[in-house]
Amino acid sequence: MNAASPPAVQRIDVALPGERAYPILLGDGLLGAVDVLAPHIGRRVLVVSNPAVAGLYLDALRPSLGNAQVDCVEIGDGEQFKTLETYAAILDALIEKRHHRTTTVVALGGGVVGDVAGFAAATYQRGVGLVQIPTTLLAQVDSSVGGKTAVNHSAGKNMIGAFHQPRAVLADVATLKTLPLREYRAGLAEVVKYGVIADVEFFAWLETHMDELVAKDAKALLHAVQRSCQIKAAVVAEDEREQGRRAILNFGHTFGHAIEALTGFRYLHGEAVAVGMAMAMDLSVRLGRANDRDAARVRRLLDAAGLPLDADVEPQAMLTAMAMDKKALDDQLRLVVCDALGRVCVTAQAPRAAVHAAIEGCRTRHTPRASGNSAA
Amino acid sequence: MNAASPPAVQRIDVALPGERAYPILLGDGLLGAVDVLAPHIGRRVLVVSNPAVAGLYLDALRPSLGNAQVDCVEIGDGEQFKTLETYAAILDALIEKRHHRTTTVVALGGGVVGDVAGFAAATYQRGVGLVQIPTTLLAQVDSSVGGKTAVNHSAGKNMIGAFHQPRAVLADVATLKTLPLREYRAGLAEVVKYGVIADVEFFAWLETHMDELVAKDAKALLHAVQRSCQIKAAVVAEDEREQGRRAILNFGHTFGHAIEALTGFRYLHGEAVAVGMAMAMDLSVRLGRANDRDAARVRRLLDAAGLPLDADVEPQAMLTAMAMDKKALDDQLRLVVCDALGRVCVTAQAPRAAVHAAIEGCRTRHTPRASGNSAA
Repeated sequence: MNAASPPAVQRIDVALPGERAYPILLGDGLLGAVDVLAPHIGRRVLVVSNPAVAGLYLDALRPSLGNAQVDCVEIGDGEQFKTLETYAAILDALIEKRHHRTTTVVALGGGVVGDVAGFAAATYQRGVGLVQIPTTLLAQVDSSVGGKTAVNHSAGKNMIGAFHQPRAVLADVATLKTLPLREYRAGLAEVVKYGVIADVEFFAWLETHMDELVAKDAKALLHAVQRSCQIKAAVVAEDEREQGRRAILNFGHTFGHAIEALTGFRYLHGEAVAVGMAMAMDLSVRLGRANDRDAARVRRLLDAAGLPLDADVEPQAMLTAMAMDKKALDDQLRLVVCDALGRVCVTAQAPRAAVHAAIEGCRTRHTPRASGNSAA
Repeated sequence: MNAASPPAVQRIDVALPGERAYPILLGDGLLGAVDVLAPHIGRRVLVVSNPAVAGLYLDALRPSLGNAQVDCVEIGDGEQFKTLETYAAILDALIEKRHHRTTTVVALGGGVVGDVAGFAAATYQRGVGLVQIPTTLLAQVDSSVGGKTAVNHSAGKNMIGAFHQPRAVLADVATLKTLPLREYRAGLAEVVKYGVIADVEFFAWLETHMDELVAKDAKALLHAVQRSCQIKAAVVAEDEREQGRRAILNFGHTFGHAIEALTGFRYLHGEAVAVGMAMAMDLSVRLGRANDRDAARVRRLLDAAGLPLDADVEPQAMLTAMAMDKKALDDQLRLVVCDALGRVCVTAQAPRAAVHAAIEGCRTRHTPRASGNSAA
């Protein structure tokens, strides 16, 4: 009998001080690998997942958990379950199964599972261990790394939460094979973002490999996830609690969050961020920072990823929603703008008229109806 | 016109790293003092209080808040309101009034207000500023200092929460004048605790000044609160997140929490802790650590403070409740025991039989009824 050779593990370190440092463990087929997770979990584990992901991957995961005693709780699938109620249900499960301070919460799923399970881990008995096992592209390159945990409030996304770094992140790109294509493409928006904010060479690599990525080619995917995680890890290590530079990760997000809110979450997060990045590039050009060519390249790359570039949103309503964004400081709207591909900065100086025009510039054009009033 | 001279302010520093360091500002009549709080609050404030305390002190507080825009939310008065529901109501108030990341939550009240408002501050937009203004003795010497925030779960006290250090603590002993005597005496239990765990001279001072303290003599009170806060600040600075030495602050508390749970919170926290300390001293003597004389001195001092020394609790039920205590690590019961007045340590080695006997030793003796079965 030939035992299958163990999958290769790439390790990316998130270099935070002391005990908060942790590795991102990345590979193709890592999920059930023995001994990869063992150093990062305790003797008891609560796996938080949703029915779809648990059905696909919970059994495969078990060998990774070694001899730990494993309980499991499933939460609803979708952004509408990222609530204080779901959070309370996870806490109930921890308490009902008598989990102690030494337990490890394992979040197996996408961003919703990771964010709400992470918030439960952050606050159960004032903080227990957390391992993130992201199974969507968005979660692998973004939400599982960096310690942000949160639930939504009816008035806004991620309004309630905590910083709580995981003990480890295990990203297995093999799990992306079952991810619906629309959700997968939405994750590519964040990958494109890393090129825009920090690495023009990576951006150029994406321009030449987007077809392979859209086809979920494993080699291209491993490189894209690795480079995205490296960039995120470096930014997080520099500014763990988003008091400065970390804000650049929100490129396109202030617009994107407002689009999500105004359209009742008909856009996936990554789709809204794609439109938001188109708006942010438009704004950057209007402010005399980025040039037209950079903006066109971003639009072209997002389009190649199958992502939307416009949304049917009214600029005034957008501005109102954006003013309530968490990143607003004392009513001062702060936006990430692009100076050149690979270089962005945060500004509180963007004139309202320019922001308005940038939104208008990426507003879905409806074909005028014959009976419509076409006069301005 | 003679302006009243400003009240004297004693400052005790909680020496935590970087931005987490903060002062405890202590005095008699400090509440409305101008410029004492100003450096520690932002331009917007949400005061969290309860109807009784707000009625007494909210107007008096206003001058301290300077030019800040002040909103206020009142929560129910009592331990039964220390819940996720109350927490959610505070978050709703923050969101409804459109508070941003730069807001300051001001907790004006006792331990319940401080713990639940603190948890809301810890998690609103992943953490906003917090100022504690404790108006009970218990909160002034214990719960307002050290960054522990929490709500209860039906299965146990403080099961959900976060570490979130305040920007400042303002302790005005003048507010204790309106505190009901029973609640005031309960706070003295924690004061006695500091003598037992860390300072035999302070313990001896308490023995000679307990009558003045019970009479709320301002000078004695200032000294007692000051010394208690100094001891707590030193322990917290050494071990912010209770990974070691900070556990000594729980002397008597594992017993006390079980008493509270088993008696449906008929005991105030400090009363339950008083009985718990009597049990912990009894256990310490049984383990050959403390001597009889030390145990007797603790009992006598608690009695002089008007605190109970026994409770009508069944030892087996106590042991079960104690096993679920947050401080239990992987089902190992960890208890703080006393080696001599002023010196304690944590042990996981106390034999179950000795703990059982210590509980039995402080169990309320009912007079046997004529019809009862008096055979063992």
